Amino acid sequence: MLVTNPFVGNTVVRLKGFQKLTSTDEALQTWLNVLQVKRGEVVTVPLNEALNRVLAKDMVAKEDLPRFDKSAVDGYALRAENTMGTSQFKPVIFQITKFEEVDSKQAKQVWTGNAIPKGANAVVMIENTKRRDGELEVWVQLPLGGNVSKKGEDVKKGENVVKAGTRLNPYHLGLLAALGNGEVEVIEKPSIAILATGNELAEAGSKLSENQIFESNRIMLSAMCRELDAEPVDLGIAKDDVNDIAEKLRMALRNCDAVITTGGTSVGGVDLVPDAVNEIGKPGVVVHGMAMRPAMPTALAVLEGKPVIILSGNPVAAIIGFEVFARPLICRMQGMSKEEARPAVKAVMARKIATALGRRTFVRVRVLRKDGEFFAEPVSARGSGAISTMTRGNGFVIVPENREGVTEGEIVTAHLFGKVETVIEDV
Amino acid sequence: MLVTNPFVGNTVVRLKGFQKLTSTDEALQTWLNVLQVKRGEVVTVPLNEALNRVLAKDMVAKEDLPRFDKSAVDGYALRAENTMGTSQFKPVIFQITKFEEVDSKQAKQVWTGNAIPKGANAVVMIENTKRRDGELEVWVQLPLGGNVSKKGEDVKKGENVVKAGTRLNPYHLGLLAALGNGEVEVIEKPSIAILATGNELAEAGSKLSENQIFESNRIMLSAMCRELDAEPVDLGIAKDDVNDIAEKLRMALRNCDAVITTGGTSVGGVDLVPDAVNEIGKPGVVVHGMAMRPAMPTALAVLEGKPVIILSGNPVAAIIGFEVFARPLICRMQGMSKEEARPAVKAVMARKIATALGRRTFVRVRVLRKDGEFFAEPVSARGSGAISTMTRGNGFVIVPENREGVTEGEIVTAHLFGKVETVIEDV
Repeated sequence: MLVTNPFVGNTVVRLKGFQKLTSTDEALQTWLNVLQVKRGEVVTVPLNEALNRVLAKDMVAKEDLPRFDKSAVDGYALRAENTMGTSQFKPVIFQITKFEEVDSKQAKQVWTGNAIPKGANAVVMIENTKRRDGELEVWVQLPLGGNVSKKGEDVKKGENVVKAGTRLNPYHLGLLAALGNGEVEVIEKPSIAILATGNELAEAGSKLSENQIFESNRIMLSAMCRELDAEPVDLGIAKDDVNDIAEKLRMALRNCDAVITTGGTSVGGVDLVPDAVNEIGKPGVVVHGMAMRPAMPTALAVLEGKPVIILSGNPVAAIIGFEVFARPLICRMQGMSKEEARPAVKAVMARKIATALGRRTFVRVRVLRKDGEFFAEPVSARGSGAISTMTRGNGFVIVPENREGVTEGEIVTAHLFGKVETVIEDV
Repeated sequence: MLVTNPFVGNTVVRLKGFQKLTSTDEALQTWLNVLQVKRGEVVTVPLNEALNRVLAKDMVAKEDLPRFDKSAVDGYALRAENTMGTSQFKPVIFQITKFEEVDSKQAKQVWTGNAIPKGANAVVMIENTKRRDGELEVWVQLPLGGNVSKKGEDVKKGENVVKAGTRLNPYHLGLLAALGNGEVEVIEKPSIAILATGNELAEAGSKLSENQIFESNRIMLSAMCRELDAEPVDLGIAKDDVNDIAEKLRMALRNCDAVITTGGTSVGGVDLVPDAVNEIGKPGVVVHGMAMRPAMPTALAVLEGKPVIILSGNPVAAIIGFEVFARPLICRMQGMSKEEARPAVKAVMARKIATALGRRTFVRVRVLRKDGEFFAEPVSARGSGAISTMTRGNGFVIVPENREGVTEGEIVTAHLFGKVETVIEDV
């Protein structure tokens, strides 16, 4: 059926929706199979620039940590055997030495962290001794290795301490530094071009004309990329025009590792971005129309071997589409075997919700913690397009395709994207 | 008691530990009372640089969102009243108009997101109509406001959409953009000087001489600062020398908003950093010696109105000290009324642990999720100083001062600093 579209002249309009909707799992798998994701290049960065970067290779300890037996306390290193039967009423006397080796009758003063001198195998704490005139009175019996941090007690030489594909947190960095690494090999940040489309869109901060709205998807998707250590590249706003869109897509494909667009899919019944993608080359759009809510009009494409994700212009649909398709993509581009899951908690559904059979539904919820238990309150009420559901909510509950909703009191898994507030707490 | 310290010549050595340990709560409160934390300056940044920044002022919506009634579907805008009693067998005919206003017998084609023309109050979905020769056959009855996203449905003008003190996530940025904000007022990043002390310390990546170890605290604490949107300033490594330490502290106080040191507190029974701090000025050290494990030798000081946190050189103690004292400080410097809590879950203790009465004990645990339930396995076994307990673990359990441990099977709160792995899952 051919209809005149107000924006683009003659174009095929799909009035009855998609002939077939694809499940999100099948869509992702089909697309990844066509795509054959290439892991990013390996780059070496100084350790102090490596926070949140993804490790490229297993890090194996080249040495034991600690590198030597060291004292865990302030005290005197000596041989434990010679404190056998010792007590405050029956002290043993040691000669204090300044040399780096002790014999069976000698003790050497050590501070926390100092290497244990040769010949010693235990450290008596300073408060269990009395020192006078080069002699040390010891009041307690020590076990072999008492108060000694053994060589390799923290990490053994050859141990795989951080695995490839790990996103580095402050403690990974600390451990790598303690093992002597001043730099580290990580995966280059994938560069993700982000393009918004729509004649009605104006830049935030500019002046609106009538019936215009502020564009808000690029800023949001850019930030979501940054959270995954990917580098967003802003392509601006394209008009509702296949040529304008195609030109910007070609530029993106030349300069970036992946492209994400918002809008221009099933808008006004026409598929501007999918059309532009298919004009550029093969295979183009691989899947279009997802059995999900929101984000049904999402399309997944491949051009020049690079991934193109065509998201809805609706902000919440764009977020969910990113979550379901861009997040696993970016993690794979960084060499992870599977995507990083968001933190999740079991929660009690505070109110019943209805969902459509055959659609995987992403319900925004506000998770609260009350007396140690989590409760999930749906926040989608004011309209599914409402971006404020993402700021009033802090998680989403995924209702599977074979369900028509969730009942009040049902236990669900809430995937968290924000902080959980505690209302009343018993600890 | 005067003893010759191997590093610093004559100095007072505290051989028997602290005369009095202060509870962490009391220590923090006492210090904050002396300190009177000043909130950082307000700075305006472009929205695309505002991820994770802390909002300085409540953001109030200057307009409704949506700004106008708009269509939630592709279809035709019309008056709902005139579809009363309509069905596929008893359709109603409307005249299609191209004008921006409809009368009771007219309908105007609209796409998702388009403004509703004057006079209309509902939208019929395109699939429930048939169009021919300028006429529209409508097959369904519509409620008032059917398929219309009402003006202000998402956000009402005057609504406080994001509160001062909020750390901005991608969805906050999206909402602020949708409301037309191209920039946003945030709190300037507090600059935190970080100094390590110790003759035995070498830079990671350098060559070690005998009995030296790699310094790893600065990189870790810097990353922890960055996670809280504070700006770390590296002061390097000071020798175990009061003058060297004092000189670096003076430089830090001139240039930064706060100072964190590691090492040189109760090391070898001497307090190099506290001594250096007290040499610089008043009030100097406010609290020293905490009723906690690890991190007992932590000290809190104030110099020139600025906070100085003196952490242990033991990496795990430094982390816990940061967590308990630096984290609340930084949050307050950013204008939050209380510190951001880490995500926490209730977990079943997988193994019993013993702790010391009178000490708040921070037990590193590995939290696992198994059949929807969380289990916490202590990972402190290999020695409390072991930094690998932080990379093998993903959380800590706080055992209060009035307990001597936790029994196996007890329900505890695990505060998470890493990802939780799922072992077996039923959803």
